[in-house]
Amino acid sequence: MHPLLTTFPLAQWLQHYQRSSFISDLLAGVIVAIMLVPQGMAYAFLAGLPPQYGLYASILPLMVYALLGSSRSLAVGPVAIVSLMVGSTIGQFADQGTDAYINAAVNLSLLVGIVLLLLRALRLGSIVNFISHSVTAGFTSAAALMIAVSQIKYFSGLNIPRELHIWEVFDLLASQIHEINPVTLLVGLTSLLVLWFTKDKLCCLLESMGVPARAAQPMSKAGPMFALITGSLMVWGWQLDSSADVSTVGTIPTGLPNLFAIRIEFTLWQDLFVPALLISLIGFLESVSVGTVLASKRRERIDPNRELIALGVANLGAAISGTYPVAGGFGRSMINHSAGAQTTIASLISALLVLLSLLFLTPLFYYLPKATLGAVIVMAVIPLIDFSSFRQCWQFNKADALTLLATFVLVLALGVELGILSGIGISIALLLYRSSQPHIAVVGRVGNSEHFRNIARHDVTTYADTLALRVDESLYFANTRYVEEFVLAQCAEQKSLRHVVLIFNAVNFIDASALETLENLVLKLRDEQITLHLAEVKGPVMDQLLNTSFIEHLGDGQVFFTTDQAMRALSG
Amino acid sequence: MHPLLTTFPLAQWLQHYQRSSFISDLLAGVIVAIMLVPQGMAYAFLAGLPPQYGLYASILPLMVYALLGSSRSLAVGPVAIVSLMVGSTIGQFADQGTDAYINAAVNLSLLVGIVLLLLRALRLGSIVNFISHSVTAGFTSAAALMIAVSQIKYFSGLNIPRELHIWEVFDLLASQIHEINPVTLLVGLTSLLVLWFTKDKLCCLLESMGVPARAAQPMSKAGPMFALITGSLMVWGWQLDSSADVSTVGTIPTGLPNLFAIRIEFTLWQDLFVPALLISLIGFLESVSVGTVLASKRRERIDPNRELIALGVANLGAAISGTYPVAGGFGRSMINHSAGAQTTIASLISALLVLLSLLFLTPLFYYLPKATLGAVIVMAVIPLIDFSSFRQCWQFNKADALTLLATFVLVLALGVELGILSGIGISIALLLYRSSQPHIAVVGRVGNSEHFRNIARHDVTTYADTLALRVDESLYFANTRYVEEFVLAQCAEQKSLRHVVLIFNAVNFIDASALETLENLVLKLRDEQITLHLAEVKGPVMDQLLNTSFIEHLGDGQVFFTTDQAMRALSG
Repeated sequence: MHPLLTTFPLAQWLQHYQRSSFISDLLAGVIVAIMLVPQGMAYAFLAGLPPQYGLYASILPLMVYALLGSSRSLAVGPVAIVSLMVGSTIGQFADQGTDAYINAAVNLSLLVGIVLLLLRALRLGSIVNFISHSVTAGFTSAAALMIAVSQIKYFSGLNIPRELHIWEVFDLLASQIHEINPVTLLVGLTSLLVLWFTKDKLCCLLESMGVPARAAQPMSKAGPMFALITGSLMVWGWQLDSSADVSTVGTIPTGLPNLFAIRIEFTLWQDLFVPALLISLIGFLESVSVGTVLASKRRERIDPNRELIALGVANLGAAISGTYPVAGGFGRSMINHSAGAQTTIASLISALLVLLSLLFLTPLFYYLPKATLGAVIVMAVIPLIDFSSFRQCWQFNKADALTLLATFVLVLALGVELGILSGIGISIALLLYRSSQPHIAVVGRVGNSEHFRNIARHDVTTYADTLALRVDESLYFANTRYVEEFVLAQCAEQKSLRHVVLIFNAVNFIDASALETLENLVLKLRDEQITLHLAEVKGPVMDQLLNTSFIEHLGDGQVFFTTDQAMRALSG
Repeated sequence: MHPLLTTFPLAQWLQHYQRSSFISDLLAGVIVAIMLVPQGMAYAFLAGLPPQYGLYASILPLMVYALLGSSRSLAVGPVAIVSLMVGSTIGQFADQGTDAYINAAVNLSLLVGIVLLLLRALRLGSIVNFISHSVTAGFTSAAALMIAVSQIKYFSGLNIPRELHIWEVFDLLASQIHEINPVTLLVGLTSLLVLWFTKDKLCCLLESMGVPARAAQPMSKAGPMFALITGSLMVWGWQLDSSADVSTVGTIPTGLPNLFAIRIEFTLWQDLFVPALLISLIGFLESVSVGTVLASKRRERIDPNRELIALGVANLGAAISGTYPVAGGFGRSMINHSAGAQTTIASLISALLVLLSLLFLTPLFYYLPKATLGAVIVMAVIPLIDFSSFRQCWQFNKADALTLLATFVLVLALGVELGILSGIGISIALLLYRSSQPHIAVVGRVGNSEHFRNIARHDVTTYADTLALRVDESLYFANTRYVEEFVLAQCAEQKSLRHVVLIFNAVNFIDASALETLENLVLKLRDEQITLHLAEVKGPVMDQLLNTSFIEHLGDGQVFFTTDQAMRALSG
């Protein structure tokens, strides 16, 4: 294939691009832009930035992704969870509203871009797999809940500091309930109503009125735009900003961001590195998950390595545009796909429309109430709060379910960064704990067959002088003493024993600590006139053992190809 | 058994105690005390404390261990590596020579005691297994090297700050080589010579002179005492402390420590917790390792749970005596054993002798040169610097060898605490990395047997329509996508495939992430008209799967008892 085609998936798609594909892309691009403009401004608030920075993040990064991305319908740009993470990170190093705050966010974009490209260059993209399903689920639900609760300040008109915990927000709300601005609340609830109605009811209503589905469907996705219009009209018509103190977006500077305005601050990088790594991994994980789901609906696949590059360069684009990190979002990607996006041309169209909004429409946002943007955010994150996955996990594996719950609670209690790190730590600790106390089965012969199974589960024949033990785990530092204790305890119980056969068909590697323990075990058993044998040692493990003097160290002990051969040779 | 006998192993040993046992214990106790007095003072210097605190740590803790410990010959008290760790920990929070410094060390003893008892109460003693053989080896060598180098200040008479890195010490030494006190150096080297001669040569010399072995052997273990006498006599005889500025121990307060003088400072505990945990684990690990080796020489075993209690209470004893944490030391335990200790009565005798020294002998230490104490330390730690284990590791498992080397380097570069934490982190990361890219073998039938082995290693028969894959690892979040990719890539290569059999005999558990991936894999393969089957699923894993709808989800796929049955049923 031509190198251009492998570097730029878009070039490949354009080879078979048709007029009908373009019409689909155009429609999807417009619909996504209609969501993107209000969401962009809302997410910028969430990240602690002025609203235009959300729009700045919706132009160059989208164009970059359109060229480099391997997903046809992933909608890149500002997303809720990354915005939350950016806000809670930068809030530690700078005061909101200052130049230093904005510049720190831009440095963060640069770092996220570099981290993603480094992960690709070092072929470390797979470390994202260490964030387990349970951790992701617990983290996402908690972050979505935090985001929804953080919008209470816009609905209530109260001044609620962003660093408060969820329960403190409710405390504050209870104590200041009489100071809630009822008009602001009304505007917010109206916006929610408009959003809910457009999403859930408008389509049926229009169709029942005879509007064709291909017109009704797109309409039902323009909820954010209707909410913006309703909210702005309410404020403008009744002068709510002056008469009822309803907080609005106000003046947004018209025009494009200054490119290359970043002041690189290496002193910040040390502090920003871990957050940047987490934002990279979470952003990458969300993008790849959504991208995979959407690709599989077309029986296609995305290439995670290519996504690392595309998202990495998209974040460099965010840094160049002087704004904060981007990722592929869940909600807008779904809309993009269901609106019919065929290629990333749809993203190019969205970016173009956001650019036009910045050039011409910003005066229209003057009366846009912040409560309406809050409603847009709340509607976007509610689908992310998911309790059913806990129930499913619980049935299958209690440890996973507890990890999910712990991550959820810790994110709420400690914040997003420490919360997710603790979740990852817990999932790894549980994994290690599980493998440090491996399952060891005493096995016997099934009937007259060559098969040996657990005596506790099957009706099998055992032998008085030969004990066969199947070790169901690789042997390494954390479990080797447990295995040794188990074998010695079994031997202490059976006085007539002459041979112990360790069945290694589930032992995938042996480390140096385990080798030392095995050597000691040979000696300890020999003291009790018992010979240790091995059976079903796998090729790679046998290669390892042959590099040492372990086989000679076994003395009279042998290594058998199968357990059957071992038992025939040994048992009286 | 009477509860007294199970709680106090000593009570059990005393049931068969004989006059000859007591004579052995007495001799061993005296020999250990002769080592303990100079080592105690030297290790106290290493911990940044006045010399008497090493002696305080050699009375009550020994008595406690004598009552509660399950090892007959473990010699508890101040030890080199723990002293180094205490010094580097407390140095961060208080200035050496202040009351605050001493009090912090006493708080650390209390915390170490509590941590050890908590580990017992929570049945978490096995977390010590997470410090792998390689990490221990790398850490011990590096710590011993640091300790040896830290004694250069006593040999040279130069003022070398304790927080310097090893290479900085040599830099400083090179730049101030003309300011080295030659008399101090001479005293130090003389002490080293006396120690080396007594240890390696005296025994042969005495035996060749006709002294009976039972008198010559103990003499050869009194090296530290000879060194003390020689050193003190040199200083006293030639007035080296005033004429040549040789630094000496000086006045040591006579008498016992004030008991219960500790001021508990909870504000410190937060900072001291991680160091206390590490000191507990390292101290416990060293004690149990030595104890196990010595017990196995008598064909006995020690009880790690009982050791947690004994060492925990011994450290509470250290806190009560107003001194710093203790552990079971390598060198003195070996001497105690080879000097013939039969029971912990030997430790009681050592403690008694240290007590008598504190009451009556402290004036004798006035002229004791610090260089002699440095020589005692250097001789004690040199056996701990061990390069052969790296070579052995390298042959068996490169990853273990690299962990050892990395821990060694990181301890030298980052200090004991961060160094060992990094070592543990690296060993766990390598373990996870290994299991995240599991070995997966395509297997075929061996001859006409029921056995299936790796096609790459054995001459086996395979089938065009049925692929048998053996997954050599449990399936969990970090490796599940790797396995999925592998299976899909194999299927893409073989166009005639109708069935894939995953052989799960090495799969010991499946977590929620893996279950989800398997469900997706079933669907993806079904899209390509391939049916997924399982074989040799272990009991615990099958139980897990039966709790979910996975088996129905398999559709036409089946779960076979053996690979043989699967291949007979499926392949054309």
